[in-house]
Amino acid sequence: MDIEKYMQDLGVRARAASRQMARASTARKNAALAGIADALRAARETILSANREDMAAGRENGLEDAMLDRLELTPARFDGMLEGLEQVMALPDPIGEITGLKYRPTGIQVGHMCVPLGVIGIIYESRPNVTIDAAALCLKSGNAAILRGGSEAIRANQAIAACIRTGLAAAGLPEDAVQVVETTDRAAVGALITQPEYVDVIVPRGGKGLIERISRDARVPVIKHLDGNCHVYIDEQADPAKALRITLNAKTHRYGTCNTAETLLVAEAVADALLPDIARALSDAGVALRGCERTLALLEGKVANLTAATEADWFEEYLAPILAVKIVSGLDEAIEHINHYSSQHTEAIVTENYTRARRFLTEVDSSSVMVNASTRFADGFEYGLGAEIGISTDKFHARGPVGLEGLTSRKWVVLGDGQVRE
Amino acid sequence: MDIEKYMQDLGVRARAASRQMARASTARKNAALAGIADALRAARETILSANREDMAAGRENGLEDAMLDRLELTPARFDGMLEGLEQVMALPDPIGEITGLKYRPTGIQVGHMCVPLGVIGIIYESRPNVTIDAAALCLKSGNAAILRGGSEAIRANQAIAACIRTGLAAAGLPEDAVQVVETTDRAAVGALITQPEYVDVIVPRGGKGLIERISRDARVPVIKHLDGNCHVYIDEQADPAKALRITLNAKTHRYGTCNTAETLLVAEAVADALLPDIARALSDAGVALRGCERTLALLEGKVANLTAATEADWFEEYLAPILAVKIVSGLDEAIEHINHYSSQHTEAIVTENYTRARRFLTEVDSSSVMVNASTRFADGFEYGLGAEIGISTDKFHARGPVGLEGLTSRKWVVLGDGQVRE
Repeated sequence: MDIEKYMQDLGVRARAASRQMARASTARKNAALAGIADALRAARETILSANREDMAAGRENGLEDAMLDRLELTPARFDGMLEGLEQVMALPDPIGEITGLKYRPTGIQVGHMCVPLGVIGIIYESRPNVTIDAAALCLKSGNAAILRGGSEAIRANQAIAACIRTGLAAAGLPEDAVQVVETTDRAAVGALITQPEYVDVIVPRGGKGLIERISRDARVPVIKHLDGNCHVYIDEQADPAKALRITLNAKTHRYGTCNTAETLLVAEAVADALLPDIARALSDAGVALRGCERTLALLEGKVANLTAATEADWFEEYLAPILAVKIVSGLDEAIEHINHYSSQHTEAIVTENYTRARRFLTEVDSSSVMVNASTRFADGFEYGLGAEIGISTDKFHARGPVGLEGLTSRKWVVLGDGQVRE
Repeated sequence: MDIEKYMQDLGVRARAASRQMARASTARKNAALAGIADALRAARETILSANREDMAAGRENGLEDAMLDRLELTPARFDGMLEGLEQVMALPDPIGEITGLKYRPTGIQVGHMCVPLGVIGIIYESRPNVTIDAAALCLKSGNAAILRGGSEAIRANQAIAACIRTGLAAAGLPEDAVQVVETTDRAAVGALITQPEYVDVIVPRGGKGLIERISRDARVPVIKHLDGNCHVYIDEQADPAKALRITLNAKTHRYGTCNTAETLLVAEAVADALLPDIARALSDAGVALRGCERTLALLEGKVANLTAATEADWFEEYLAPILAVKIVSGLDEAIEHINHYSSQHTEAIVTENYTRARRFLTEVDSSSVMVNASTRFADGFEYGLGAEIGISTDKFHARGPVGLEGLTSRKWVVLGDGQVRE
């Protein structure tokens, strides 16, 4: 198989389909989503059985347990795909919305129209349910998609792809609007990310290694989500109850998510008063602490699992029950620390002080900045986007949780009565 | 000189300066713009004399006349730089604006804050006045800038750079906020566009060759402006007077601009009635026509300078008094032709028909779509942006004329009262 030629062919067909998708009505796009759900329900056993084959092959190939867990299409996850389709159907259609139509002195009226980006390439690992999530979001936003799942999920992905084609065809939309790459050859990824003539943006979903590799080699824009080294800063005018509650939630609500706190900063003026209680609560929850020198001096003997933090700890995304703790002189040092060590994902200040809250919001250079709220809220659903394509750690195009809007652009609309330029 | 190291050093300093710029107040940024204007006025003779040296060196090196014309800093162009600074000072500051702060069911309030992109790299040719324009726009939008002008303009650019530093320092802003590359070594461009850790976006301003080269090699997002192959389509229900006026203006108002029409499409139902008059008017204005077969049959003997169009003509951006003309069956063929051959810059329909106007706006995939207005309006100033960084022929991040907003991003702001995620 000539991978370059195969991927180019997918690209040509995706580009052609994207033209039809761009002008598809909301009703037709929703009909396709409903048709995909129908097809999935009809093919439930086929898909689950394909997934069982993927699982068996995965076990044979020695996939690790975490990977196998993500690969498995449980009945609950299957139902989750159907619910996801319903949710995307219920979302307002962003495409075609015209905003800001204003008259100019020349008499022309100028505004913006929301349009699809065109062709979206999505590269993901293991989870076969992403195939449906990604297809639904691209379809609703009037884009064509080329989906490249992990080789370990190829059987389930192909069975799901057949359902997507059925749903598209039933609604009178081009089957090429969502193409799932049929080869497991890794060269397919390389080809996908270097075809700017056919692919408008790449959304990788997976580990940091995958995303770094893709970002490095891509010749197409990438909506990338690297790591989440999130901070909670307890200001000297923090409400003690809020400080405790937010720190505990930000660290212990879930350990493996990117919006989990990895470093706690505490203003020295309140460290003696607040830190011991917070540290004990964290310790009771099973969290190991890595403290700065002053933290060690303050907490030594008071909590279990306390060790000295190294420089590397301040950069670390643990994704585990570990928290780095540093006592800082105040807001200036906190902001400086965050802007230096953070991955610019999400940071929260706990304070009752108006001026310092405002400064934190303005001066911390991260994609989400919060006052008196847990970093765990940084999420497309919690923010009300109704869906999440990913969380961008870049600033270009989109920053932070990205909803359907991240798969759109805006073109200019000019309405005149025969005006010409003088 | 170790170019890699030199450029890296510029990058490190730009990144540091960008932090200070991001939190600079509107008043301070405007003070810097005023300070730069003062410094320019004081250094007027120095700068003009540096430009004369550049011109003399250019002539010696055999620069072509068009290049020398762009290189020359006439007194009017010098005054234009001062006016440009005044205009940017008068623009509203986009940074820090918070929009859409809405309550979520959890009680947190979520919105967007406009923030600078960070460090902007601008690569341009010959015109030394771009140094001021670019610096002013980056500064007002709270970004740091690294400017790389053409080697032929190095003396004037360095003299202008000194004024920018003076103005920044006078306002208490870091001099490194705007750095003009001091070497004419071409490797500097290569280094600038491959430092994603220091540079957030590249804006090239120059010919298509420069922009294609930069886009191909960049490891940083590029706001790129390739060619403008713009179309006027005369619908079967076009008002004849508007059709004539708009076609003439779109083609003949200026030949060298990217929003000039390069192809005229005419619905066959009105070709006999409208095209001969329009063709004669164009011909009288000195425009040569390249017609499709039916155009040739209709116009042969009626206008001078009429030749047969080849396939290549439909793709061509002439930037000259030449217009390709095609008679099409109607709107469907017009849209198909445009979406195939156009560079997706700007297209206009002339029609009194409501439904076809609406279809044209929706289905034509170009950055500006117009009804009954000249393509020449596609311009940041005409659209009311107050400034123009460039015109993007991409869809990612920005599309069409890009104002200050194109140099900004939005971060998420979350305001809570101690909320945690359940």
